[in-house]
Amino acid sequence: MGLIVQKYGGSSIADTQKIMNVAKRIIDTHKEGNQMVVVVSAQGDTTDNLIKMAKEITDNPSSREMDMLLSTGEQISIALLAMAIGELGYKAVSLTGAQVGIKTNSDYSNARIETIDSDRVKRELDDGNIVIVAGFQGVDCEYNITTLGRGGSDTTAVALAVALDADRCEIFTDVDGIYTADPRIVDDARKLSEISYDEMLELASLGARVLHNRSVELAKKYNVRLVVRSSLNNNDGTEVKDMADMEKMVVRGVAHDYDIAQISVVGVPDEPGMAYKLFKMLADENINVDIILQSTARDNTRDISFTVAKSNRDRAISIIEDNLSLLDARSVSYSDGVAKVSIVGAGMVENPGIACMMFEALAEEGINIHMISTSEIKISCLIKADDVEKAMVAIHKKFKLNCE
Amino acid sequence: MGLIVQKYGGSSIADTQKIMNVAKRIIDTHKEGNQMVVVVSAQGDTTDNLIKMAKEITDNPSSREMDMLLSTGEQISIALLAMAIGELGYKAVSLTGAQVGIKTNSDYSNARIETIDSDRVKRELDDGNIVIVAGFQGVDCEYNITTLGRGGSDTTAVALAVALDADRCEIFTDVDGIYTADPRIVDDARKLSEISYDEMLELASLGARVLHNRSVELAKKYNVRLVVRSSLNNNDGTEVKDMADMEKMVVRGVAHDYDIAQISVVGVPDEPGMAYKLFKMLADENINVDIILQSTARDNTRDISFTVAKSNRDRAISIIEDNLSLLDARSVSYSDGVAKVSIVGAGMVENPGIACMMFEALAEEGINIHMISTSEIKISCLIKADDVEKAMVAIHKKFKLNCE
Repeated sequence: MGLIVQKYGGSSIADTQKIMNVAKRIIDTHKEGNQMVVVVSAQGDTTDNLIKMAKEITDNPSSREMDMLLSTGEQISIALLAMAIGELGYKAVSLTGAQVGIKTNSDYSNARIETIDSDRVKRELDDGNIVIVAGFQGVDCEYNITTLGRGGSDTTAVALAVALDADRCEIFTDVDGIYTADPRIVDDARKLSEISYDEMLELASLGARVLHNRSVELAKKYNVRLVVRSSLNNNDGTEVKDMADMEKMVVRGVAHDYDIAQISVVGVPDEPGMAYKLFKMLADENINVDIILQSTARDNTRDISFTVAKSNRDRAISIIEDNLSLLDARSVSYSDGVAKVSIVGAGMVENPGIACMMFEALAEEGINIHMISTSEIKISCLIKADDVEKAMVAIHKKFKLNCE
Repeated sequence: MGLIVQKYGGSSIADTQKIMNVAKRIIDTHKEGNQMVVVVSAQGDTTDNLIKMAKEITDNPSSREMDMLLSTGEQISIALLAMAIGELGYKAVSLTGAQVGIKTNSDYSNARIETIDSDRVKRELDDGNIVIVAGFQGVDCEYNITTLGRGGSDTTAVALAVALDADRCEIFTDVDGIYTADPRIVDDARKLSEISYDEMLELASLGARVLHNRSVELAKKYNVRLVVRSSLNNNDGTEVKDMADMEKMVVRGVAHDYDIAQISVVGVPDEPGMAYKLFKMLADENINVDIILQSTARDNTRDISFTVAKSNRDRAISIIEDNLSLLDARSVSYSDGVAKVSIVGAGMVENPGIACMMFEALAEEGINIHMISTSEIKISCLIKADDVEKAMVAIHKKFKLNCE
């Protein structure tokens, strides 16, 4: 008998019919002789509706009260799903984050899980229950309700798989698994049967929004067997796991990300410490910077360009504008019409030819590269957003990703 | 500096505007130098909507999961109200039943409060917070979420007033206080400035649905100063309290109740133990019986008539029908077109003339009395539902209840 943790997102349980379907799917796996712990998110638009209610009252809600409010969404889901399983004749019990004993820090709206007391879940499993757990939430040491931020329910599922020493953790979503590229853009994109944690991490942060990085990092740290599957069919998904053949160079896939703004600070003095000053003030405001490009010095000044998420653009610009004199820089400007395409694969750094192939594919299509960024297992190029689809098809073809 | 517990019902916080109004009212009392603990129910239709969601999934939801579901309604309310107070510039913190430490038994959907650990509330008050508490809910010894059943939020408020040794407990509702009769029926009904716990208990159970009996019983037991007020104006309400002048006979008010079905079991053998058999089988199914009338024996049989809430009528009938042979009775029948009018006042039992005055008022209007029931402090008559308004006006006038 195995112990399986499953996670279903909000779209998988958006209405009564979908809840019943998910209940049947859970029971099917249970009937194969498995103990089941199931993590769910809030239904469909619930979270958005709750946010709207808060916004009607104040533009600036307390983050503690916001978490108190939003956590009700998952609580509704778990009760309804437990009822659905009961209606189908099986025993289920729902548990909130607090009841499971998911202890987090007090960083409301973006809390980190610190410990999970798995006793309650184990006791319910031993009593023959299917255990339904509210994702995305926990409590701090004072029992204040916290939420885990983006990708929180995935993180809850993986953390529970760790705490319970589960045989596997299945993340159900609306796609079949991880593809070599977005199938909506690249016709012959191929589903991967497996991928390493590191490759998945790069793919996730590069815009393939299937799994959130936090959950993959946690899975990697504790070596959780993670499977990404569709809640709409019974196809095998993609298994994310520790892969041994790291030496063999394989380009796994092509990722793209439109959520990027490029910011340029012009005329920064060519002196030590200027980049530190600039990025320190952004870091202090919790703004993540991705690719950084520094021009060579001319007239004793440099231009520093970097990318941020579009949602951080205005804040970043205003911070820099407020400090232009401190930076002794001439001006700051931005461009939104950019996007990032990336190839991901283990062992890339030891294969310099790979980067060339990527640049060649882009050149053949007449696509200009604004910025380049590389890591152990990925190469990213910032290009015009309008060129992204053409670029992905060309790169996918160049690396023959449609073939096994 | 006082400590005041206030309770606002679902209609008082049904939308954003009403929440802001309640927030202002709370702050006004806070600014007078009081520490404030505020209990709220779920907004307007929230509970009904949640029940509807459950009913779409199953006709027979687990009561544990139902409580898990319904308790989200109050949780949404407390978060929004705390945000509203914050928006107006005051410190507020919301707490669920679990966080307050409201421990109940495990009787889901109708749980009883066992203990309240007031430490957390006191700490938040000492930190200068207005404390917003979710009504109607608690947790059992295993931290399962429970709800308190009808009138639950009133009970939460009174229980908190006890645990915190509050100076008073104000129940805000959509009426100004307790009246000598329903002002919609009796034009010159008068608001009472005060009423005893016992009188309030009789009025509540007799159909004046302002306060739930459980909360009044609790207030009586711990001598909590309870005030019923309107959330729509600043009028003085009615104070419910221990009243010393019990010897002085005063008819406090006239109550009415349409939620009554009369059931008659015909041809029950005139033997000892038959009434016990009949009412035991109803009690076993948790059906409350109110007035009971047993006819004198004829041909060695009696007829037993009694009243139940309309919602229990079908269940009661079917239980009796299933057991007609056990009871050796001929048949069972019911009548819905009945209602109860009652007068309430301390010391009634020592004033036999009072009952006569009531019967006289009814006789003068040509109203027939089906059943009579009396207690220490009330006299109830079952009459035709169509006669209720006429009866109330006549009784109100007979006892000159319009005058102080």
